[in-house]
Amino acid sequence: MNFMPQSQTSVDPVKLEKLAEVAVKVGLQLQTGQDLVITAPVVALPLVRLITKHAYMAGAGLVTAFYSDEESTLARYRYGSDQSFDRASDWLYDGMAKTYAKGTARLAVSGDNPMLLSEQDPAKVGRANRANSAAYKPALEKISNFDINWNIVSYPNPSWAALVFPDDPDAIAVAKLAKAIFAASRVDVEDPIAAWAEHNANLAKRSHWLNGERFASLHFTGPGTDLTVGLADGHEWHGGSSTAKNGITCNPNIPTEEVFTTPHALKVEGHVSSTKPLSHQGTLIDDIRVRFEGGRIVEAKASRGEEVLNKVLDTDEGARRLGEVALVPHSSPISVSGILFYNTLFDENASCHIALGQCYSKCFVNGASLTQEQIKAQGGNSSLIHIDWMIGSGQVDIDGIRPDGSRVPVMRQGEWA
Amino acid sequence: MNFMPQSQTSVDPVKLEKLAEVAVKVGLQLQTGQDLVITAPVVALPLVRLITKHAYMAGAGLVTAFYSDEESTLARYRYGSDQSFDRASDWLYDGMAKTYAKGTARLAVSGDNPMLLSEQDPAKVGRANRANSAAYKPALEKISNFDINWNIVSYPNPSWAALVFPDDPDAIAVAKLAKAIFAASRVDVEDPIAAWAEHNANLAKRSHWLNGERFASLHFTGPGTDLTVGLADGHEWHGGSSTAKNGITCNPNIPTEEVFTTPHALKVEGHVSSTKPLSHQGTLIDDIRVRFEGGRIVEAKASRGEEVLNKVLDTDEGARRLGEVALVPHSSPISVSGILFYNTLFDENASCHIALGQCYSKCFVNGASLTQEQIKAQGGNSSLIHIDWMIGSGQVDIDGIRPDGSRVPVMRQGEWA
Repeated sequence: MNFMPQSQTSVDPVKLEKLAEVAVKVGLQLQTGQDLVITAPVVALPLVRLITKHAYMAGAGLVTAFYSDEESTLARYRYGSDQSFDRASDWLYDGMAKTYAKGTARLAVSGDNPMLLSEQDPAKVGRANRANSAAYKPALEKISNFDINWNIVSYPNPSWAALVFPDDPDAIAVAKLAKAIFAASRVDVEDPIAAWAEHNANLAKRSHWLNGERFASLHFTGPGTDLTVGLADGHEWHGGSSTAKNGITCNPNIPTEEVFTTPHALKVEGHVSSTKPLSHQGTLIDDIRVRFEGGRIVEAKASRGEEVLNKVLDTDEGARRLGEVALVPHSSPISVSGILFYNTLFDENASCHIALGQCYSKCFVNGASLTQEQIKAQGGNSSLIHIDWMIGSGQVDIDGIRPDGSRVPVMRQGEWA
Repeated sequence: MNFMPQSQTSVDPVKLEKLAEVAVKVGLQLQTGQDLVITAPVVALPLVRLITKHAYMAGAGLVTAFYSDEESTLARYRYGSDQSFDRASDWLYDGMAKTYAKGTARLAVSGDNPMLLSEQDPAKVGRANRANSAAYKPALEKISNFDINWNIVSYPNPSWAALVFPDDPDAIAVAKLAKAIFAASRVDVEDPIAAWAEHNANLAKRSHWLNGERFASLHFTGPGTDLTVGLADGHEWHGGSSTAKNGITCNPNIPTEEVFTTPHALKVEGHVSSTKPLSHQGTLIDDIRVRFEGGRIVEAKASRGEEVLNKVLDTDEGARRLGEVALVPHSSPISVSGILFYNTLFDENASCHIALGQCYSKCFVNGASLTQEQIKAQGGNSSLIHIDWMIGSGQVDIDGIRPDGSRVPVMRQGEWA
């Protein structure tokens, strides 16, 4: 083969293969005979090849990969006519939903340039995102409902690396980002599988404590933040590995440092400020400040990307309400690295965060057996979107509020109390 | 962008962009607002990007590209378990069939290594091909029935170039193959669009003459060949540009030098020998010798790839019968180049050829309005496969036989008589 991205030389091939192995064995727990759908940026081809290899070694049925390409994405904005921006590949997403319904696992490789669309017309970006979200809904539901085992891992895309390490030459930036990804993904140790087992046990201990407390709400205070997040009736905390409705225990996110649950869509009050920039489908949104009334965002500002943020909030009614709240200590390895990744998969694991939009049905007691109506009645939100953004820092305190109004310190200055 | 296959440096970027423009404007005649699905080897990314650009410049709705990867294809054979070889992405092909039914155009970039699977177990290759053919059927029917405008162009994949020019270093082989592709695709002239208009007019003149003659059959004689190919009732010759059922006039194959029609599935008698190797899904099949009785292949031999050939013939009943007969003069530019491409899209345009399997409904008078039953009654073949192979050379003569038994010379020593 003569085809190799230049960045390949900067990426340790042994660790890259360990990442592929962890994605298949820990991330997916891919089963004998199970089909796999992979989505990835085309620059991540070296990782996709290794994942494909380890998937077949694990007894995969058929592995099918779909590649996105930044240049081709930009071509629509540079040369496309206006009508193009309301189109989406609904037939492809419908097909994905069908194959997920038949038990196919899903692995996404992350690594797109977080700033790809930052120079493009926000109105067109908003229309394209909305069309894509609507088309993607049936497939996303299989994932957000946790019907199947799924996983996301990351690849050090040169355009992403250039944003994270702007002062370094390309090859150095890629090498640094690769090292950070390998460390955060726990594949830079001798036995990554054992390291993940230990990490999963620690996260399970935190979830267990929170599930025992059964708080009615969490109260966040810090600079620019005074927010009370009501928790859904019958909410359940999760973290680390988790069992999908198909019975397979997987680690959806690699890396992961969070424990998380479902807020009550109607019971969020106060104001909150973001503590890290959010990269949403190629647009950077920074310094978000929003105000909630009755669970709904009634005011939203940002120092950068405010127009795209407001278009996101207008996606549907549920886009203005919360679908997730997650706790991450300020001392998490990703936070300690000091690197701002401009990638939610990493930045959300350096900081407590909340997510706009769709809730996870697994974050309810007996979530797998609840209907959509029951989830809604218990306070679960529904939306075409699910967008995490970071609100934690070393200056944020969190209290758990019990149903009787008494308070329990949960975090102080960003650390478990 | 830091991502560029090494071969890119060997390929003239100006001619590559002309190829992309010809694919969109001549090959597809892509319409304003029409969606486009592209399939391509991942090494062809530079061409796919240019096609995407020109598609959007032509007013495309949404352009969606799917990439295959030779290393990932091989991973199934190297590491996959036995059950994997009966799987196919039916959900993806079903989706493609649906979007084609809604008017989406289809462009395939050819260029896969013709020998990719030659070292693999023929039984597994046969099973994988059969599963894929069955799954692909609904999408292929939209193409073979000419419901939509579609096109194939080629990219000089390094692994293909190495096979065509085995004595040259990689970069030279790619440069030579690129040059041959550009010449055969008529993009090495100042005005490729005008060159294609003239070429299409010449091919139309040949078809017109053959349609006036209304031969009952063609009689091929040459070394190892004495074959009478009955033509279907109400057959119609086509060549060059052609109008799809959606009303769009396109050039499905680039390059193309052939005029072709539908044989009668029950009226082929005698024996025939291939004059060039056939590359079928990664296996090279050489020196094919088959004998027909009543339209059916009753004996098939090959000096190489015989096992795969016989598995192909066992795909279904129609796989043993002909779906196409095509006439190409021995002096065609591709033949004169003297290059053996190991790629049917090129080699079939250097030589008269026949195709096993599915017929084209457009190759009937009023083909667009015929039902499947009518097509069958008139002698049209149906099958999951459509595989062209070469039977023409400078030593082959062809007579046209009229319904009254009289003979008209059609070709002598490989040239129009």
